[in-house]
This record gives sequence, C-alpha cells and structure tokens, in this order.
Amino acid sequence: MQSADAGFLLGPWAAAHLLRVEDALSRWVTADVPVGQAHGAPADLVQAMRYAVLDGGKRLRPLLVLGACESVQGDAAAALRAACAVELIHAYSLVHDDMPCMDNDVLRRGKPTVHVQFGEASALLAGDALQALAFELLTPEEGDVAPAVQARLCRLLARAAGSAGMAVGQAIDLASVGRPLSEQQLRDMHQRKTGALLRGSVLMGAACGPGDPAQWQALSDFGSAIGLAFQVVDDVLDVTADSATLGKTAGKDAQADKPTYVSVLGLERSRRYARELLDAACTALEQARLAHPAPLRALAHMVVDRSH
Amino acid sequence: MQSADAGFLLGPWAAAHLLRVEDALSRWVTADVPVGQAHGAPADLVQAMRYAVLDGGKRLRPLLVLGACESVQGDAAAALRAACAVELIHAYSLVHDDMPCMDNDVLRRGKPTVHVQFGEASALLAGDALQALAFELLTPEEGDVAPAVQARLCRLLARAAGSAGMAVGQAIDLASVGRPLSEQQLRDMHQRKTGALLRGSVLMGAACGPGDPAQWQALSDFGSAIGLAFQVVDDVLDVTADSATLGKTAGKDAQADKPTYVSVLGLERSRRYARELLDAACTALEQARLAHPAPLRALAHMVVDRSH
Repeated sequence: MQSADAGFLLGPWAAAHLLRVEDALSRWVTADVPVGQAHGAPADLVQAMRYAVLDGGKRLRPLLVLGACESVQGDAAAALRAACAVELIHAYSLVHDDMPCMDNDVLRRGKPTVHVQFGEASALLAGDALQALAFELLTPEEGDVAPAVQARLCRLLARAAGSAGMAVGQAIDLASVGRPLSEQQLRDMHQRKTGALLRGSVLMGAACGPGDPAQWQALSDFGSAIGLAFQVVDDVLDVTADSATLGKTAGKDAQADKPTYVSVLGLERSRRYARELLDAACTALEQARLAHPAPLRALAHMVVDRSH
Repeated sequence: MQSADAGFLLGPWAAAHLLRVEDALSRWVTADVPVGQAHGAPADLVQAMRYAVLDGGKRLRPLLVLGACESVQGDAAAALRAACAVELIHAYSLVHDDMPCMDNDVLRRGKPTVHVQFGEASALLAGDALQALAFELLTPEEGDVAPAVQARLCRLLARAAGSAGMAVGQAIDLASVGRPLSEQQLRDMHQRKTGALLRGSVLMGAACGPGDPAQWQALSDFGSAIGLAFQVVDDVLDVTADSATLGKTAGKDAQADKPTYVSVLGLERSRRYARELLDAACTALEQARLAHPAPLRALAHMVVDRSH
C-alpha cells in the first residue's frame, strides 16, 4: 500500500464529491428555453430529463472521473464537466434500455422508469436530449477548460458511448437472448456494453491531467478491469439480491434467458473472478505510480464489494 | 448579384461535393468491431446505421456546411467531417421520429423506415449510435483538424441537436398535436425542430474558417432564414405533392392533426412567406461580404424551389 493511502476513507471523499456532482447536474440538466412557452413542452422534456438523472444512482462513473483526475493532479473544473457528461450518457442509456422495445422494465432506482412515468415518446426524446447535453457540457464557450481538453473529452466519450462501445454492446446483448455465449463472447459483450463507459470515465478523468503515456496505459488497464468486475458483480447480485435492495427488478436476466457470468461460470467462480479482476485493477494502479491513487483504489473495492 | 455568382451553377458544384460526402459517409459509418464476432450483432447494428444514412436524402445540411466553409475560405477537411456529422444527427432524428411511439411512419426516402426493416430495438440503438458517431467524426485523434476547431464544432452540433434545439422542437411538436398554435408558437417550434440544425450546419461550415464576427452574425441570420423557409416549404409540399414525389407519406401532418404553416397561414400566404424568407436570407448573405457566396445563395434558392 502506498503512503497516499494511509488513512484514506472513501466515505468522506465520496460524500464531498457527490455533493459537487449532484449540484452541478441539477444546475446543468435544464433547457435554454423560457418555461411555459409553447404549451410547456420544453418544461415537460426537462422534467423527464431531470427525473432520469437526479435523485438516484450510485454516481460511480462521475466518482471514477473525479478520482482519476485527482490521481494525476488534473484540472478539477474540466473533470466536473466530464463527470456530469458521462453520467448523462449513462442515464440516457438506462432510459432507452428500459423502454418496451428493449428490456421493457418498469422499475429503476426504486422509481417507475421514465417511459412509465412520462410515456414512450418523452422517454425517447429525453434520452436523445441527454446524449446531446453530455457533449454540450464538455464544450463550454466560456470558462477555463482548454479547447484541446474539450476535444479530447468529446473524443473519449463519443467512442465509449458509440458503435465501438456501449451501443454495440447493447446490440450484442439484444442478439444474445436465448443463445449460449462462450466466456469470451460474454466478456466482449460486457466490455462494450458497460465496460467501455467505465473505462472511459477513468480515461476522461486522466485526460484532465498532463497525459503521461505510461500512466495513461495503466489507467486504461485499471478501467478495463473494474469495468468487467462491475458487470460480473452485477450478474452475481442479479441472482443473490432482492429487488428492494437493487432498486430494480431482480432475477430479470435469468428470466429473460440472457447469458450472464453466473449462467456461464456459475456463482462461485463468478465471485472469484470478480476478486481476480479487483487484484488486476489494483496492480495496474500500482504500476501507474500516481500522485493520489487512494480514491481510485477505494472505488475499485467499492465496485466489487457493493450490495446493490 | 455579386461577381462571384457569375456563371455559378449549383448542379456541378453540388454533384462534386455530394460525391465527397457520400464517399466519406460510406467510409465512416461503420463499427470498429470485427464483423461476425459475437453472433454478428455489431454487423447488424452497422447495417441498420448504414441503411438509415446511405443512398438517400438530399444532403442539404452537408451542402450547407460545405458551402458555408467555402464562403469563408475555411478548412475543407474539417468541413467534410462537420458535413457528415450533421447528416448523422439528421439521420438519427429521422430514425427515432419514425418510430411507433413518435410519428409511426413506415415510409422514408422511398424505403421502409428503419424500425420496419430492422425492428424497433435496432432502430432505437442505431439512432443512439449515430448520434455518438457524429461526435466521434468531429474529434479525430490524428489528422489536421485543430483541437480548437474540433471543440467549436462539437459545441455547435450539441447545441443544435439538444435541449435548446432539435430535441426540444420535437417535444413541442408532440405536445402540439390537435392544439391550435399561434404563428409565433409555430415559428418557435420549427426554429428548434428543423431550423436549429440547418442554421447549425451553416455555422459549422463558418466555424471551419477564421471566424470574423460580422460574417458570423450574418451567416447566423442566413441560416435562421433558410431554416424556417425549409419548414414552410415542407408544409406546403405536404399538401401539394404526392407520396411518390416526396419519398415519404404525403398529407401526414394534416391527417395527424398537426399544426402546420398551411393550417395557420393558408397555402398562398405560406408560399409568399417562403419567398420573403428567401429574400431575407439573400440580404443576409450580401451583408456578410463573403469571398464566395454563390453556393450558399444557390442552396437557399434550392430550399425554396424544391419539389420534394
């Protein structure tokens, strides 16, 4: 354990950063439109967007961005924008993923899903608008985020969200229902579906710093390991936790006949695999020789040890 | 008429530029995934994305980007990326707009809509992936597009597409079915729904150049005028053209009891309004004192005089 870890507690660090993230999201998830104009439709759209984003979620991705930024002593203002942008992408993907033509889920973060609450058309539009807003947050016209950092953040986010990352992972997921997948195919799917955005979060945080190539690679490895660990743990929790603890419908994947780590590896091997990935993540962190690795290390432990 | 217009013919100019745009779209709308992997789902997603984008469409937005870039003698490589990016945003908006929970349309550009051809889930994902890809195109890691230009293009596109532009325009449109709108409310809706992306196209082209403030304002006015003119003409064509000519279902808006310029102003006043907007656009162009205004002027005429 490096000296920077001595006495580090995730709780107070996360609490302070979560306050900043929640405050920023609440200020930024809005529309540049006078409310009440044109039958209040803009207000409705913003309401659906805010419902999808605020008052819920573990904010793991924003914390990874902020932790990675601190680990390389990067620009905190840029990282706050990146943290919120990646959370908007995550939120939009949940809104669309829950829709009847996809997973048809009615419960999310303990609340009715957006399409249940606002209707399908509003859910579709709110998701679309959240994706655009993510890139808007990354490209402020005024302020102190350097244009080169803005461009780098947009690049990382677009790749993590798009046809090499999350969107194609979703497509593989859809096409896999009822089909047996090898462990390698399952890993490929999850590395794209959830892993790409988690790794992207770490890299976006790192992109707010000076950009040492060796650190970059090690942080990329760290992000890949915890990205995969997150999904393995998700699959374990899907069969071991109840809906109230999860805040979403438990047992859903098994019901939908979706391949999961538990169905491919079994429960015990899945748990062991999650620990191995945690070890790999911590090893990568050590190799990175970061100024402040403690928050990232604590976040990696949280990913594997969480109960929901 | 300025001297730069002498002998200018839109046809050859547009044909040459369309070739570049079609070629670039075909190269860029793809996925960074080995085809055939994991049940070919990535290939399916890319197929839906290509179906939505290629072999169809007037490419008005790309031509506006390229015309605006030429008018300010901007960077042609950056403009080609911007031209394709804005077309991807347009294409994704059509895919989502046609879905059953929105307009429920089955015909687009003379072909079955994406959700009819590939299913709703694939249409949803393909649209999402196209939006992400647009921002990916704007932020190449290597090449000669300056980071500051990349950031500016992302900013303009995100604003035009998002909760101050297209997405909120769609929300107003949805909320307006069966309700009377004043002319001002109708204009506000269309300025967002279609106008923001058309004006954004002009500004993105201008952003590839040196950025003279007076020219910028004049081009913004030009973009606003033709953005609105486009919609007025669309509403006129919806009642005067047939489905075969339009390549989409004619009379749809009237059937759906949506307010249109024709329903608010009547057919003749709508036609006259389109000419007035064309005049305003041409006046703005003259005020801009551009190096090469001819392509933009010709495109403005095309917007108003088109038959589909």
